[in-house]
Amino acid sequence: MVMTGRFISLEGGEGVGKSTQLLLLAEALKARGLSVVTTREPGGTPGAEAIRGLLMTGAVDRWSPRTEALLFAAARADHVERVIRPALAAGSWVLCDRFIDSTRAYQGVAGGLTDDEILALHRVGSQGLMPDRTLVLTMPVAAATARMVARDGADADRFAARSDGFLDRVADAFVALAAREPERFRLVAADGPAEAVTARLVAALADLTS
Amino acid sequence: MVMTGRFISLEGGEGVGKSTQLLLLAEALKARGLSVVTTREPGGTPGAEAIRGLLMTGAVDRWSPRTEALLFAAARADHVERVIRPALAAGSWVLCDRFIDSTRAYQGVAGGLTDDEILALHRVGSQGLMPDRTLVLTMPVAAATARMVARDGADADRFAARSDGFLDRVADAFVALAAREPERFRLVAADGPAEAVTARLVAALADLTS
Repeated sequence: MVMTGRFISLEGGEGVGKSTQLLLLAEALKARGLSVVTTREPGGTPGAEAIRGLLMTGAVDRWSPRTEALLFAAARADHVERVIRPALAAGSWVLCDRFIDSTRAYQGVAGGLTDDEILALHRVGSQGLMPDRTLVLTMPVAAATARMVARDGADADRFAARSDGFLDRVADAFVALAAREPERFRLVAADGPAEAVTARLVAALADLTS
Repeated sequence: MVMTGRFISLEGGEGVGKSTQLLLLAEALKARGLSVVTTREPGGTPGAEAIRGLLMTGAVDRWSPRTEALLFAAARADHVERVIRPALAAGSWVLCDRFIDSTRAYQGVAGGLTDDEILALHRVGSQGLMPDRTLVLTMPVAAATARMVARDGADADRFAARSDGFLDRVADAFVALAAREPERFRLVAADGPAEAVTARLVAALADLTS
């Protein structure tokens, strides 16, 4: 059993089951004797949650893309410095619900900043910390949207409808990022029973746990 | 009379009279028929003031230097995009109480980030907007501290004492920045009657107003 901490991010569009799978994956890794810390972005520390509060409230156009990118980078810097790096240094596995690739994928679709600009902010804020493995949960967008509607009702419905094809383009953006860094990324099908999905995620970490 | 907008920042350590001189300088420029917008950092927009609220409250160590630098850059991005650039585009002169050089000077003393990192954030957040002229008010630190104590009482006393030589090092940092960009910077002595200081500031803009 490897005792070195590893940093794992879970990514994907809304409704693919990231939050549920994060908990199930954490249980599976703990069952193997690993120390596991679960966290999420934006947030994960009191400071980052306060910044999340700025990001998630107010009018849709409260922040320009550039200001928003800096606020995400600030929340991430706090989270990395105060939770993720200390946990890794203590030998824990860190499972994070969304990380830098969500900013890259959503920003890539929403526009306003280049990927190089996003990565420049990440270098300054978090000294460029990248996950050891990024697991992208994939599912046809129609199925993910149906899951969101079943879970959240009309709110999810409205969110999913914010722009024609938005979720398709986000899903495509994650696949494009994965293609550029095949060592770090694994695409994992999110359909079927939850335990089957978890088994796929565990398998996608096999080279790190053996 | 030049009708093009110009961007002027006022810089210097605490207690040198920046806020008072900003108002007096604005009056002097208005008397010449210029349209003048006065503003301050961090702040200047509802969003930037909300970020300022995060920066100015809570424990002294609430934010790490990296998170703090990103929050300052976020507030500045909002301010530049929503106040400063529109005012300049409309032909106004913009007088700003502190701008990027305060971040550089204080960060240069507090440490944690390099000047290159601060400028990288500024390039992404504000597309690198620099003032046309930066006026640094200078005064012996002992005199500035005495003014702060007279104005704010014990609070200023405690603030000035936060670290031996802190204000000296900030003052030195502004002088060092000015030496690196002599075209943009002017050092202006802040001692003597207020109207004499304002006259020096107006003179330091002569090449821009003629």
